[in-house]
Order: sequence, then C-alpha cells, then structure tokens
Amino acid sequence: MANPIRIGIVGYGNLGRGVEACIGLNPDLQLVGVFTRRSPESVIPLHAHTAVFALDELSTRTTEIDVLILCGGSKNDLPEQSPQLAAQFSLVDSFDTHARIPEHFDAVDATARASATTALISAGWDPGLFSINRVFGEALLPDGASYTFWGRGLSQGHSDAIRRVPGVAGGVQYTVPSDAAIAAVRSGSRPELTTRQKHTRECFVVLEPGADADAVRTAIITMPHYFDDYDTTVTVIDAETLARDHAAMPHGGFVIRSGTTSAGTDQVIEYSLALGSNPEFTASVLVAYARAVHRMNQQGQFGAKTVFDVPPGLLSPKSAAELRAELL
Amino acid sequence: MANPIRIGIVGYGNLGRGVEACIGLNPDLQLVGVFTRRSPESVIPLHAHTAVFALDELSTRTTEIDVLILCGGSKNDLPEQSPQLAAQFSLVDSFDTHARIPEHFDAVDATARASATTALISAGWDPGLFSINRVFGEALLPDGASYTFWGRGLSQGHSDAIRRVPGVAGGVQYTVPSDAAIAAVRSGSRPELTTRQKHTRECFVVLEPGADADAVRTAIITMPHYFDDYDTTVTVIDAETLARDHAAMPHGGFVIRSGTTSAGTDQVIEYSLALGSNPEFTASVLVAYARAVHRMNQQGQFGAKTVFDVPPGLLSPKSAAELRAELL
Repeated sequence: MANPIRIGIVGYGNLGRGVEACIGLNPDLQLVGVFTRRSPESVIPLHAHTAVFALDELSTRTTEIDVLILCGGSKNDLPEQSPQLAAQFSLVDSFDTHARIPEHFDAVDATARASATTALISAGWDPGLFSINRVFGEALLPDGASYTFWGRGLSQGHSDAIRRVPGVAGGVQYTVPSDAAIAAVRSGSRPELTTRQKHTRECFVVLEPGADADAVRTAIITMPHYFDDYDTTVTVIDAETLARDHAAMPHGGFVIRSGTTSAGTDQVIEYSLALGSNPEFTASVLVAYARAVHRMNQQGQFGAKTVFDVPPGLLSPKSAAELRAELL
Repeated sequence: MANPIRIGIVGYGNLGRGVEACIGLNPDLQLVGVFTRRSPESVIPLHAHTAVFALDELSTRTTEIDVLILCGGSKNDLPEQSPQLAAQFSLVDSFDTHARIPEHFDAVDATARASATTALISAGWDPGLFSINRVFGEALLPDGASYTFWGRGLSQGHSDAIRRVPGVAGGVQYTVPSDAAIAAVRSGSRPELTTRQKHTRECFVVLEPGADADAVRTAIITMPHYFDDYDTTVTVIDAETLARDHAAMPHGGFVIRSGTTSAGTDQVIEYSLALGSNPEFTASVLVAYARAVHRMNQQGQFGAKTVFDVPPGLLSPKSAAELRAELL
C-alpha cells in the first residue's frame, strides 16, 4: 500500500469524535491529531493514543498533514477557518448554511487557488449526498419533480429552540416526514406539497419545577419559523426518560425524483438514509471526501470544490481498475 | 445558451428510440440523426424530422457530431463498435457484460487515447447508477455489507430463455426481489442471503397448440443457470393477455449498504429505482452522460472512462455556480 494519507482534525465535538472513530476504519488513512482551541489537556479523545494539539500549532505542522477535516460550526467557525486554513492546507468542511454557500465557496476558492491547495466545502449528507442525488434526478429526468424529506431525526436547531422556551428544563425535537406525502411522491403523481403536509414535529420536554405545561406547549407550537408552519406535538417527560431514551442522534431522510420519459411512462428514483448517528455518518462522509481531496490535490486540481466536482471513484481506497473489475 | 451538443445515435431498437425521445427533453442537446446498419428507408423514427443514415456515412460526418450514443447489444455490437468508433468520435455505450468490462475498457481506451476522444463505457443503471452507489456505500461505511436486488422487472435474457422451451409460443419473465430479504437487509442485521432467498422468478407463458403445460413448467423451473437456483412460478396465459398486460418493460431494484460506525450504531444507505420503462430510463442515463463526455473531452480528458470517473455536476446542463446556488 502507498503511504497513508495524513489527516488532521480541527475542532473536537460530536463531529470531530466521529471523524476520529471513522479514520480507524480506513487503513489507508492516518490520524496526525486533533487541533483544538481549548486547552489540549482538557480534551479527552476516544482513543488514548490520539494526539491533541493547540490550534496554533497547525502552522508549524504543514508538512506533516495532507488534509484537514474541519469539524467546527457553520455559523461562527467555518466562515473564518476554511478560507484561512486553505492558505496552508487542503481541507474538507461541512458548511451547511445553504443560502450562504456561494459566498463561502468564493472566499475559500480565492485562498485555495492562490495557495495550490484543494478545499472541498459543504460535505456531509445534506448538503452533500442529498445534493448529488438532486443533481442526478434533474439531469436524468428533466421532465419531473424533486422532493427532499428529512427524518425521522433529531434536529439540533429545533431542540435548541425549545430549550430556550421559559419553563423548559430540557428537551429534544424530532422532524418526522409524512408517510402519506412520501407515498404520494412515490406514486409518480408529482403532488404539490405544503410545508405542513411534508413533515410533522415531535417535541419531548422536561419542565422546570412549577412550570405550566399548557403555556409551554402553546409557546412551542406557535413559535415563528421553527414550529408555526408545522403540525407539532409536545410530550412532557421526566429527566430520566430524556437521558435514557433521547440521547442518541438518529437522522436520515429521502430524496425522490419522479419523472416521465414518454407519455404515461413514469420513472422514480429514490435515495434514502436511515442513520443511527447523524454526527458519525456525517463524519464518514467527510473522511471519504478527504481521501478524494488529497488525490485531486495531487492531480493539480486546486481551489474550492464541492461534492459536484468529485468523481465517485476517488472516494474509494480501491484503484480505478479494481473498481471496474469489482463494483461496476 | 452555448452551442448545442450534437448527438448521433448508432443502432435503433428500444434503446435508440429511448435516446431519441430523451434528447427532445434536453434543450442543450441536438440530434444529428440515427445511424443504422439496416436500410435507412426501412427505419421509422419516433419523430418524422429525425434524419436516418446508413452506418457507413458516419465517417463522413465526424465534424458534425460531438458525441455518439451507441445503442447496440453487448454481445456482438459493442465489443466491435466501441473501440472502432472511438478512433473518430467521443461516445457513450451501455456495455453490460460485467465480467468482460475490464477487457472492453482496455480495448476502447487504446483507440480513444490515441485519437484524443473520450469514450464512456457501461453507462446505464446497472452497470451505472447502481455501481456508483456500491462505490459510495463501501467508501462511506467500510465496516458494512452491500446488497443489490433487481426488480420487480422484466428480464430480457430470461424471457428469451423461456421462449426457447419446446411448446412455448410466447412469454415473459419477471425478476422479483424478496420483501423478506429486503426487510432483513434494511434492519441492519447484515444477513447472508442465498440466491434463492434474494429473488423469485415469475413466468407468464403462452402455449403452442397441443403443448403439455406440466412438461413446459418442468422444463422451465429446472433450466440450469436461469431458473434452477430460484423459486420459479409458471402461469399459463393466452396470447391476448400476453399482448395486453405484458408489453411494457418495467424494471428497477435496490442497492443497500448497511454498516456500523461505532459499537451498536447502525447506518443504512438505500438507493432504489422504480422504472416504468427500462430502455427509456437507460436511454436517459446515456444522454446525461453524453453531456458529461463532451465536457470532459473539451477539458482534454481523453481515453476510456466509466461512471466512476465523472463528477456529478458534469451531468447537469446547469453551470457549477448554478448548481452550488440551487441544489447544494
């Protein structure tokens, strides 16, 4: 086997931990270490042999790392880190603020091109794998309609929102796709679906002592943007139940393209994910794209990239000839 | 819009007709004509304005065509045509004899590299879209198992086989995936499945006058390679029913990857197709890849290619910036 691809992890929350675990499943990859803004001594990695460094040390280790995997948040970390680190490293990030992707791309592209690095932004499953399937769907069935459903899964943003409601001590929110809506889409009838028809929202909350359950329920289901466009249920549970039954971070969803190739001939393409752990799966996507990024950089493909720019074969540790013989 | 991409169709059966129909759905593509080994006057295209030429005329039209879509068979046509035509044209074929893909690739690659053309082999849905999903599955979930199910769909090869049985005047065969097997795979339990457990085969036959139904049934269900490893049902129908209910060519299937990212955390990726017409959908795949092939040729990427080598964004008529803004 060729030299392993040397990976650095920037940021160590759920996603960073998932990347650390995933690198262990890929013999062609080698983890150089975790780079953190916290005090390195305060970070306990999954594996005792994983090195933890201060983020500042990165600039002294440019020759030891082939690809950085950025595991920070899209709101504050990545808009700053990705353009900055692309000046010294090839990298993968999971920037997922859809509306701001073009400006993030441009910022990263400028430094990556100037520095002969390769920086893939917005990897993960949405944006990421779901996006790829939206492109395939449109390209293969131009006379058609695309649908994306999310869930059943824990939404971090909506869980944070319910925890900010007065009287709520803790809670989680699950986004649930409508079975009826999915069935209508699969039938090829190309339904027009409202937000309310596509998904429902299930909240599980622990109340603070003395809080009024009805007031909490009303505050949640009428919350603008987050809940008012949806049919929302609120179930009050105790803290023990929350800790026992709602600690996992399952997620998933469906991308469905329904189209017609001639009068009366329907074709349906469906891609779905059922994820036991959202951060661990997202990490798996980032790791596979880190392999592709390293190869693209070696081929001289510099600048910002997205999943749309990556030939699928580059994600695999196998050679092109092996893939043709075994998987085509 | 830029100049349209000019397409020639080589061979005009069900697949060629599907390509003709599909090009009409894509405004950035233009059909130069159909090229046939038959007498051009004997070919009636879908659209009256479609030009039909003798295959020999191709060599006089090299400057009028950007990409050829080869619609002949994998047994006799493509092994000869693809390497030969790659000397003058960029092209897409749907070579689907899995075991002979490496040698077909090498033969096409030699002429395409020498001629600065780009020749994508084995496009379609399997090989093709299903292959891409097998690569993604392995790369994303290295600790896992992959499963491909086909159907419910009409199998041309098996239908041909039952029509060769003495006493059979006509018939069709449907490959049917087992619901129980799919459910077991989706559960994440990574079952080991025998051929018999994965699919059943349903045959509908019209008997010749005086033929013995039991003898025909026995001959079919014991036929080596085709049926003896499967649970097969044989239903006798009349010629009218065959013509009325079994003229469509539906197909589809599932590629499922079930894997684990940490102890007890299962992840399942599923890709499925429900196709009203197998040849029309296969044609849609060939047409989208013809667009990509033309772009790769313009980028100087010469030689034989497969779907593993094609960045998804190249399949779309939209620009990279449009895709990032609208679909990522």
